[in-house]
Amino acid sequence: MTSAADGTVAQYQSWEVEEFRALEEPYYVPVSDEVELFRSAWESKVPVLLKGPTGCGKTRFVEYMAYHLNRPTFVERDGEQVIEEESNLPLVTVACHEDLTASDLVGRYLLEGEETVWIDGPLTRAVKAGAICYLDEVVEARKDTTVLIHPLTDHRRILPIEKKSQLLQARDGFLLVISFNPGYQSALKDLKQSTRQRFISIEFDYPPRETEAAIVAHESGVDMDVATNLAKMAEKVRNLREHGLSEGASTRLLIYAGKLMQRGITPRRACQVSVAWALTDDRDVQRSIEEVISSIFE
Amino acid sequence: MTSAADGTVAQYQSWEVEEFRALEEPYYVPVSDEVELFRSAWESKVPVLLKGPTGCGKTRFVEYMAYHLNRPTFVERDGEQVIEEESNLPLVTVACHEDLTASDLVGRYLLEGEETVWIDGPLTRAVKAGAICYLDEVVEARKDTTVLIHPLTDHRRILPIEKKSQLLQARDGFLLVISFNPGYQSALKDLKQSTRQRFISIEFDYPPRETEAAIVAHESGVDMDVATNLAKMAEKVRNLREHGLSEGASTRLLIYAGKLMQRGITPRRACQVSVAWALTDDRDVQRSIEEVISSIFE
Amino acid sequence: MTSAADGTVAQYQSWEVEEFRALEEPYYVPVSDEVELFRSAWESKVPVLLKGPTGCGKTRFVEYMAYHLNRPTFVERDGEQVIEEESNLPLVTVACHEDLTASDLVGRYLLEGEETVWIDGPLTRAVKAGAICYLDEVVEARKDTTVLIHPLTDHRRILPIEKKSQLLQARDGFLLVISFNPGYQSALKDLKQSTRQRFISIEFDYPPRETEAAIVAHESGVDMDVATNLAKMAEKVRNLREHGLSEGASTRLLIYAGKLMQRGITPRRACQVSVAWALTDDRDVQRSIEEVISSIFE
Amino acid sequence: MTSAADGTVAQYQSWEVEEFRALEEPYYVPVSDEVELFRSAWESKVPVLLKGPTGCGKTRFVEYMAYHLNRPTFVERDGEQVIEEESNLPLVTVACHEDLTASDLVGRYLLEGEETVWIDGPLTRAVKAGAICYLDEVVEARKDTTVLIHPLTDHRRILPIEKKSQLLQARDGFLLVISFNPGYQSALKDLKQSTRQRFISIEFDYPPRETEAAIVAHESGVDMDVATNLAKMAEKVRNLREHGLSEGASTRLLIYAGKLMQRGITPRRACQVSVAWALTDDRDVQRSIEEVISSIFE
Amino acid sequence: MTSAADGTVAQYQSWEVEEFRALEEPYYVPVSDEVELFRSAWESKVPVLLKGPTGCGKTRFVEYMAYHLNRPTFVERDGEQVIEEESNLPLVTVACHEDLTASDLVGRYLLEGEETVWIDGPLTRAVKAGAICYLDEVVEARKDTTVLIHPLTDHRRILPIEKKSQLLQARDGFLLVISFNPGYQSALKDLKQSTRQRFISIEFDYPPRETEAAIVAHESGVDMDVATNLAKMAEKVRNLREHGLSEGASTRLLIYAGKLMQRGITPRRACQVSVAWALTDDRDVQRSIEEVISSIFE
Amino acid sequence: MTSAADGTVAQYQSWEVEEFRALEEPYYVPVSDEVELFRSAWESKVPVLLKGPTGCGKTRFVEYMAYHLNRPTFVERDGEQVIEEESNLPLVTVACHEDLTASDLVGRYLLEGEETVWIDGPLTRAVKAGAICYLDEVVEARKDTTVLIHPLTDHRRILPIEKKSQLLQARDGFLLVISFNPGYQSALKDLKQSTRQRFISIEFDYPPRETEAAIVAHESGVDMDVATNLAKMAEKVRNLREHGLSEGASTRLLIYAGKLMQRGITPRRACQVSVAWALTDDRDVQRSIEEVISSIFE
Repeated sequence: MTSAADGTVAQYQSWEVEEFRALEEPYYVPVSDEVELFRSAWESKVPVLLKGPTGCGKTRFVEYMAYHLNRPTFVERDGEQVIEEESNLPLVTVACHEDLTASDLVGRYLLEGEETVWIDGPLTRAVKAGAICYLDEVVEARKDTTVLIHPLTDHRRILPIEKKSQLLQARDGFLLVISFNPGYQSALKDLKQSTRQRFISIEFDYPPRETEAAIVAHESGVDMDVATNLAKMAEKVRNLREHGLSEGASTRLLIYAGKLMQRGITPRRACQVSVAWALTDDRDVQRSIEEVISSIFE
Repeated sequence: MTSAADGTVAQYQSWEVEEFRALEEPYYVPVSDEVELFRSAWESKVPVLLKGPTGCGKTRFVEYMAYHLNRPTFVERDGEQVIEEESNLPLVTVACHEDLTASDLVGRYLLEGEETVWIDGPLTRAVKAGAICYLDEVVEARKDTTVLIHPLTDHRRILPIEKKSQLLQARDGFLLVISFNPGYQSALKDLKQSTRQRFISIEFDYPPRETEAAIVAHESGVDMDVATNLAKMAEKVRNLREHGLSEGASTRLLIYAGKLMQRGITPRRACQVSVAWALTDDRDVQRSIEEVISSIFE
Repeated sequence: MTSAADGTVAQYQSWEVEEFRALEEPYYVPVSDEVELFRSAWESKVPVLLKGPTGCGKTRFVEYMAYHLNRPTFVERDGEQVIEEESNLPLVTVACHEDLTASDLVGRYLLEGEETVWIDGPLTRAVKAGAICYLDEVVEARKDTTVLIHPLTDHRRILPIEKKSQLLQARDGFLLVISFNPGYQSALKDLKQSTRQRFISIEFDYPPRETEAAIVAHESGVDMDVATNLAKMAEKVRNLREHGLSEGASTRLLIYAGKLMQRGITPRRACQVSVAWALTDDRDVQRSIEEVISSIFE
Repeated sequence: MTSAADGTVAQYQSWEVEEFRALEEPYYVPVSDEVELFRSAWESKVPVLLKGPTGCGKTRFVEYMAYHLNRPTFVERDGEQVIEEESNLPLVTVACHEDLTASDLVGRYLLEGEETVWIDGPLTRAVKAGAICYLDEVVEARKDTTVLIHPLTDHRRILPIEKKSQLLQARDGFLLVISFNPGYQSALKDLKQSTRQRFISIEFDYPPRETEAAIVAHESGVDMDVATNLAKMAEKVRNLREHGLSEGASTRLLIYAGKLMQRGITPRRACQVSVAWALTDDRDVQRSIEEVISSIFE
Repeated sequence: MTSAADGTVAQYQSWEVEEFRALEEPYYVPVSDEVELFRSAWESKVPVLLKGPTGCGKTRFVEYMAYHLNRPTFVERDGEQVIEEESNLPLVTVACHEDLTASDLVGRYLLEGEETVWIDGPLTRAVKAGAICYLDEVVEARKDTTVLIHPLTDHRRILPIEKKSQLLQARDGFLLVISFNPGYQSALKDLKQSTRQRFISIEFDYPPRETEAAIVAHESGVDMDVATNLAKMAEKVRNLREHGLSEGASTRLLIYAGKLMQRGITPRRACQVSVAWALTDDRDVQRSIEEVISSIFE
Repeated sequence: MTSAADGTVAQYQSWEVEEFRALEEPYYVPVSDEVELFRSAWESKVPVLLKGPTGCGKTRFVEYMAYHLNRPTFVERDGEQVIEEESNLPLVTVACHEDLTASDLVGRYLLEGEETVWIDGPLTRAVKAGAICYLDEVVEARKDTTVLIHPLTDHRRILPIEKKSQLLQARDGFLLVISFNPGYQSALKDLKQSTRQRFISIEFDYPPRETEAAIVAHESGVDMDVATNLAKMAEKVRNLREHGLSEGASTRLLIYAGKLMQRGITPRRACQVSVAWALTDDRDVQRSIEEVISSIFE
């Protein structure tokens, strides 16, 4: 444990939601033309929907894009507006869930002292700051939430703040990005056509073997040979999906296995707890995965 | 990205709900006599229901009508009421959802300082301002909401504000307009006859090919040839509806495709992410749509 | 648009709920002995249930009765109570819905300044003012509401205000009137026998052709020939009910058609948007209705 | 309309819940030994459950018993407690419904000025006042309510006021009386055995013909011949129950019919609106009832 | 009615929840070694679950044990802690129901004057006072409640007060006792294994005939012959359980019958209203019970 | 009862949630390499999921690990940060249930005096204190809770505090540990793949016989022979699981049996109330268990 040296004074950090920006370039390896598509959409103010399985890199991709999209910052100098610098975009991420209400996104009144004070929610903050607002797993949210974003996705780019009877127009740079996992969707939790047809859609999948090995090596510290074996194993496990596995192993789980190996856990045991036991509770499926593991890490 | 020049001072705009009016004429191409029907209904104080699929232009039509309906504004001069100018109607739009309550529309008490203050909701504001109040996808709202609008639709044009035990008569110019999408309705989410029979109904569909091409060209910047091809493709895709597509491609998606092309994305890729992937997650249906795309953009 | 002359000062009107009375005689044409029955019930303090389909005139009938029932108003003169005038009864109407609670009817505490203040609900106001209280579509309301009205319907005519631990006896003149539409009722939304058996029931239906034509002519301004044709058409449409139409066309829709005709819309088009499209989204049923329309307005 | 003479000053009356007592003897004709059973139970502090159909007189019976049960009132005179008078018992009636919570019965905190003040609910008031507390249709209430009354029904006669962490022992004279209608009960809305077995049960039915006729004559003003005919008719209608009638006609409806006849409505019409239409919406069952009516009132 | 002599001054009594102790020994006749088991569990700090049918004496047993378990009370004298007396344990009883939340047991914040004040709930009071806390019919409570008691049942005996982010360790003497009725349990309302396995279980049934007769005689005042007949009858009625009776007659109902007889009601009538009608609404089952009654009280 | 000597002054203890640490080493006997796996995960900041049946020792294991994981505490001395001591980790445990909301974990605003004050929830406290946060039976919690923990489990280790629009980065030492019991899971209450794939998984089972006997002897005070017999019995009872037993006997129940024996209860009776009756209400299954008991404790 090395980072304890940050000491007792600044033991934990905190940010305002709309101030959060990646300080260094997020590690992301493009697979296709997704970077160009996203940039074109952002320039055209066309909202974006990202589809793909758990842990395939959608969140990292949005962080990467926010870091690389630049926007001039204007300051007033001698009575004139001049560009001071190009800054990357702030990124406001909201993990949606079935109790997420419109108020959670837009804001609410809170009693402070003797007055009720309006507190902007994360979506309102993104609209005002011209940030990218990323609603992760949007179908999980309550329906008032999905309807709320409709006027933000048409030509007016307007957020109605119903509790204040106000309309707010998004600042330049603002882009609405949502994600969902088509593998999960049921009839009950599908994205309504009236919502879908407000976004272009970019589909994601697990990265190809070489890319994935590079990511695993970079993130866990194992060498490329071990990382390639982990990526190979993941491919085979993903092919087990017809045999009772509801979803394939994510890249994140491979990184976990790599990290445990770096701490001295044997490859087979590391893969057992990071992949086989993590993915399923079904003894038979666990055994199939463990056979895959054994075939690679003899 | 051009509009960033609006600078740091007025980085985002906001309006009171009832002050919102289109500053310039909304772009709308009439298809039939819908403009005359709407004007007659407004003049007769007969509420209007707009039916039609997602993205066929209902919202834009209401904006267009609000812009073109004029109402004299009276001011007091030398103790007399004189007409100062003809102004277009304000438009109050509410996107309905299943958590929308009567209070969200009518208003509520809020604690402010040491007193509770009544804040008018958007419907009350429209009633007082003599605005057009457009309740989009009204069947999504909770039942108390649909009952609430009943007394506004009969000869008395009255809004009961139950929390204040008050009745409010609508100002001249006020018109209630609601929309719904018959393709979506289920037994559970149908408009009750006691509500339906308070409105005349105007049915909408996607615009004919030439009209749609003109709209796409105007909104995305592509030339008429490309726009016509996009409209042709949309027609064919809409005919796929029997093959597992729950709804046809909206005009908005065609505009998205056009915008991406303007940024240098190839037509096929632009149509794939704007139409095929946007409409469905089903691989087979996606392939059918992509065949349509290829047949037009070779 | 003629009535805009009411100017900017009194652009909208408002009343306290219990002050609302029709200023002029509501237009109502009796069909049978319903006026005598209602007057007898009111004189005997027997509550009344009105049954009938959407838009057959129940609400107008109650307005008409409230206008015609007289009650002496007493003032104190020289230390004595003398009758000053006979005034008609105030009418308090509540449109019931599935979120309507007992508190919505009886009243609630609100924070005002530093104190919570009790605000009477519409039912309490009607009880105190000796008004007719009309609960429209009462089965829609929550169950606590229907139980609440029980003690008001027995010999004690008492309203329990549970939040204040008080009992309130109704002032003379008070009568409870409820309505429901037997065509709608399901097992879940039926009136409980313990509620039903507290009311006499008057059944309503659409008015006979001549009466209906007179109403349509009076309300829309069309001449009697056109009005009679509209009434004829309505009769035929109502007979289509076995063919997939859940409810017949109300008189109100005929009035809408008449109004549009008065603005220059052709009879067939006016009937299409006011009747065929208003009643149903089913193409086949719409076509049947349109055939009826064509057979009358050639 | 005769009673308007109460004038403008005391136009409506109100009581505190626990002060409500019948001023004159409620009209009740005993059918069996129910009066002795109830008095014995009250003297033994054994809670009572009344079973029976809608409108058979359970509520009136409890009012009658409360009027006839006497309790000494003590006052302090010369430092001693002396009996001043025998007074009848106050009666606190609560109509239960499915939103009735324990707080509605026990009490709640309300903000008043700068402090929250505890307001006793009707059950707490009855416990303190030594009143009869009558919970009408108790199975309708929420489950917390039925559990709440358990400790009041055992040897300790204690009411736990959970919000105040207090236990309250009932004053002498207090008796818990509940009612329910076995004809209504479903599996979901049955009285739990753990609740039932805390009460003795007295079963009620409609009164025999002579008794019912006497009641109808007394309450509506018709003579005994007419009243006997109404009672005869009711007997026959109750026998129709197998033919689709969920519950027989209550005595109350016969009184309504009598009252309308006293105002000049013909017997057949009075019975139609008070009995046939009041009991059911089913045309066939209405016809059967109307045949019964015609056979008696030729 | 004899006890009215308590007069107007102390007409009702109240206690703080944790001060409630039986003043005299509760009447309880042990059936097996339940007293020793309970005492051993209390001494070992092992929580206890009591199983058994309605009205078999579980609540009385807990009152009896609380009365007989002694705990030294320490006072400070001359700077030293000395035992002043042995006192019996306070008993905090909570009747669980499906709306009972964790806050109802643990406590909540209330606004008092200008500050929110924390009010301990009954469980917190029992934990602090070292009382026996008896949760009656615990499966009825909401799930947060059953999880809440988990840390109180392991070696740490800790109550987490989540709203205050505090952990509270139970004072010596505290014991958690819960009850449930296995006859009632459905799949939905079963005690989770993770809860069950935190308690030893003592099973109860109705007392044997002689014991039950002694209890009935003691509590109702009838002589032993009559009491024995009542106990005999109860045995026979309990054997009817296969014939549609969901639960046997509790001892409490026999006591009710005895009390009514003491007031002069005949044995048959007393048993009819206390047993037959109290247990069931089914005419056939009532008749079977009445035959049992007649066979004993000829 | 010996510990009563703690007297009247400090009769119960309380801690702030994040200050709670085991004062002495928790008694835990490792079964496999679970200690090394957990330590590696904690060092790599990889979240951990513990799977296993009720009462198999998961909670005790986490307590043991928290006690043995050390973290330097820094203090400022002469302007420099120096390590003062190695302290073990605080442990924040939350028993999840179906009403547990995100606010319960993160914190909420409370009115205090004239201002609303934010109170950190247990998860926020753990994040700030660098504690182990153990969410027991996490699938029981509401969905917003499981989504909430997602950003804490990726590379950013961030807790979004939505109500304050803040992001909080976890202090060093923080680790998220969750548990669930695969035997319980239903389709409705399964851990979503998008949650599962954020944790390595360690599977637990009941300890082997010798280990379990050692634990029982240590905790209950019985000698190793009796403890071994109890462990043997448990093994046999666990094998009955196919015969209608939903879950095997936990080690805790064996300790209860041992404790009762220490108080003089016979082995058979102690096992009956601690194991047979505790595990099930089914008479047949109870008999099978009792046969197992008799075969060992003759």
